[in-house]
Amino acid sequence: MPKISEKGQLMPASPIRKLTPFADKAKLEGKKVYHLNIGQPDIETPEGMLKAIKNIDFKVWAYTASEGTLSYRKKLTEYYNKLGYNIAPDNILVTTGGSEAIIIAMMACMDPDDEVIIPEPFYANYNGFACQSGVVVRPILSYIDNGFALPPISEFEKLITEKTKAIFICSPNNPTGYLYSKEEMEALKELVLKHDLYLFADEAYREFCYDGREFLSPIHLSGLDENVIILDTVSKRYSACGARLGCIITKNKEVWNTGLKFAQARLSPGMVEQIAGEAAIDTPGSYFEAVNKEYSHRRDTLVNALNHMEGVYCPNPGGAFYVVARLPIDNADKFCQWMLEAFSYENQTVMMAPATGFYSTPGAGLNEVRLAYVLNNNDIEKAMICLEEGLKAYPGRTVDSSQLAVSSK
Amino acid sequence: MPKISEKGQLMPASPIRKLTPFADKAKLEGKKVYHLNIGQPDIETPEGMLKAIKNIDFKVWAYTASEGTLSYRKKLTEYYNKLGYNIAPDNILVTTGGSEAIIIAMMACMDPDDEVIIPEPFYANYNGFACQSGVVVRPILSYIDNGFALPPISEFEKLITEKTKAIFICSPNNPTGYLYSKEEMEALKELVLKHDLYLFADEAYREFCYDGREFLSPIHLSGLDENVIILDTVSKRYSACGARLGCIITKNKEVWNTGLKFAQARLSPGMVEQIAGEAAIDTPGSYFEAVNKEYSHRRDTLVNALNHMEGVYCPNPGGAFYVVARLPIDNADKFCQWMLEAFSYENQTVMMAPATGFYSTPGAGLNEVRLAYVLNNNDIEKAMICLEEGLKAYPGRTVDSSQLAVSSK
Repeated sequence: MPKISEKGQLMPASPIRKLTPFADKAKLEGKKVYHLNIGQPDIETPEGMLKAIKNIDFKVWAYTASEGTLSYRKKLTEYYNKLGYNIAPDNILVTTGGSEAIIIAMMACMDPDDEVIIPEPFYANYNGFACQSGVVVRPILSYIDNGFALPPISEFEKLITEKTKAIFICSPNNPTGYLYSKEEMEALKELVLKHDLYLFADEAYREFCYDGREFLSPIHLSGLDENVIILDTVSKRYSACGARLGCIITKNKEVWNTGLKFAQARLSPGMVEQIAGEAAIDTPGSYFEAVNKEYSHRRDTLVNALNHMEGVYCPNPGGAFYVVARLPIDNADKFCQWMLEAFSYENQTVMMAPATGFYSTPGAGLNEVRLAYVLNNNDIEKAMICLEEGLKAYPGRTVDSSQLAVSSK
Repeated sequence: MPKISEKGQLMPASPIRKLTPFADKAKLEGKKVYHLNIGQPDIETPEGMLKAIKNIDFKVWAYTASEGTLSYRKKLTEYYNKLGYNIAPDNILVTTGGSEAIIIAMMACMDPDDEVIIPEPFYANYNGFACQSGVVVRPILSYIDNGFALPPISEFEKLITEKTKAIFICSPNNPTGYLYSKEEMEALKELVLKHDLYLFADEAYREFCYDGREFLSPIHLSGLDENVIILDTVSKRYSACGARLGCIITKNKEVWNTGLKFAQARLSPGMVEQIAGEAAIDTPGSYFEAVNKEYSHRRDTLVNALNHMEGVYCPNPGGAFYVVARLPIDNADKFCQWMLEAFSYENQTVMMAPATGFYSTPGAGLNEVRLAYVLNNNDIEKAMICLEEGLKAYPGRTVDSSQLAVSSK
């Protein structure tokens, strides 16, 4: 029998999806499972987008241009230029989801053994994309105790070598929800200019900023035109994860032209998606207002409930729809699996993503989980009751409840 | 300014699309351009597929399972098992187009510097996928004079080293239209078993076999379950290139499980596509009969016209909707560009793909072009008149027309 590749062996399984077989089994046993493990929102996709699908009038479902249709790219500039991105259609390369945007950008900018510095915890699949492209991830720890703020620039400086080609950020952050400040962005700007690096910015959660906080993109900063590569997707913005439609935005023509060659090899992004994506740009502001109000309400419910549990700590993040919480447990992988396999409360349980998969440093995040607040408020409340009961019953619990109750007096 | 990657520099531009700017310019100048360069059929997509899109009734456009929905994979087994593939849903990994099927299969089975042997000319983007994955293509020349039949197995044996991991075939072939016989498949079977290799089979054109010829897949052969990786797409089968929906089929569980990890990193294939793809399985046989009749008629028109031009030779292929023709020219890249830039006949011209891009051996295919018969018969006739006139007028013509006319008496 021929052997699979070493790369295939090294390729990590998705920490978000790897517990799925245990969840399926729990459901077969009749348990209700609250899915807080995956960023699949329950929010409805904008009507205009779904209408555009229903109203297709072509007879031949054809390839589009590899870089995306001009019509869609023109319409996208409307959206981005309202945000002050100051771009033209030929700064946009339409991709099959944000995933393809990341992998094409990585391959256009980095060779095998080149290094990219990423504050961790980070979106787990960056590890997979790095494995595919042979790029080496150099992680920098950010800490739950200051809400996962940008680590000091001096820590980045320590990691920079001749192999370093890029800094990769995600703001608002998946998995922490942290939103970078203007000062943090300016510090990153100085760093990438000093060392002539690319600045990759995953902006999947741009629309999700709470408590009046403002979103800032590195593309807003002057002097970074050749460095900034924006990676985007319609998945979260319009609750259209199944559309597989994203884009790369860059003012660096060489990167765009190189990315196009990778895009040409796979021929074209989806045609129906681009039609729907074009319609999405006209989604009324009221949609986003309602969605943001809903998410910030959910976040408050979740974060409050978590911080009222014994031995649990969860920062209150400024954006996205995730939190990373510290739990009084020995091992998040074991705990998350145990919750599905061995535990139920009133025949219900909770599925979470162990945070270990979001760190690249071995052993980091061992007592942390990522929770996505993509269920309605009522379900989040029930899930939190379940989690609290689960934590009490878990054999690997690391705090003594009776002691804690005393010490908290 | 940060530098792009070496991989990005090495990445080939699509030979099918690289002349597009010249075609655009010709159109701006008011010329009619007959597109025989790209396999984008003008055939209508089956009504059932388009109806399925128009009838979507979900409210949230959500991710699906990374391996594709169970519902779609179940339905796909109906299609494949009618053809005798004898597979179950868990032998299928749904992908974003045939392109993704190839790149995932390559990465799951081969590491950088591993070698894959491919008879050439071959589908140009295999070069791009090999570049992305670092895999080395070892080409074996097939020849226009025997219609691009499988080269002798002894030629394969000469190339096999410790690095060789797979043989990669495409039947019916893009770009040559050649359909492998049972004897050729059996010879390949012995070869891959002898050397414990994977046998990659791109079957995008399975439905397009003419003159009563029968399609044979390596999955039909016994004893090859661990070796065969089928790469498929709905693009050509249902004239749905813009759907970006394909799949990997394999009975090798380790390859399937490894492929799934790559699939998980990019989350999921498109949801609407899978709904449409499921509906497509019920396309009536009459659709395929009509399409095949149309294509074989077009092929006859094209091949006849080509072989009546002075100095031109084109084999009559058994499948797909391409031919590779030998022209009396010095350089196919120059000629194809000249046809768009400098030539017109009655204000019309023809866009073709230079065959050089379909060879990996330098200098091969210099006087060959690939023509896709994806236009109606009437347009093909007009395009052939244009081509004949173009060949007469081309400054780099390599035969003397007056001499030829004499010698052919």
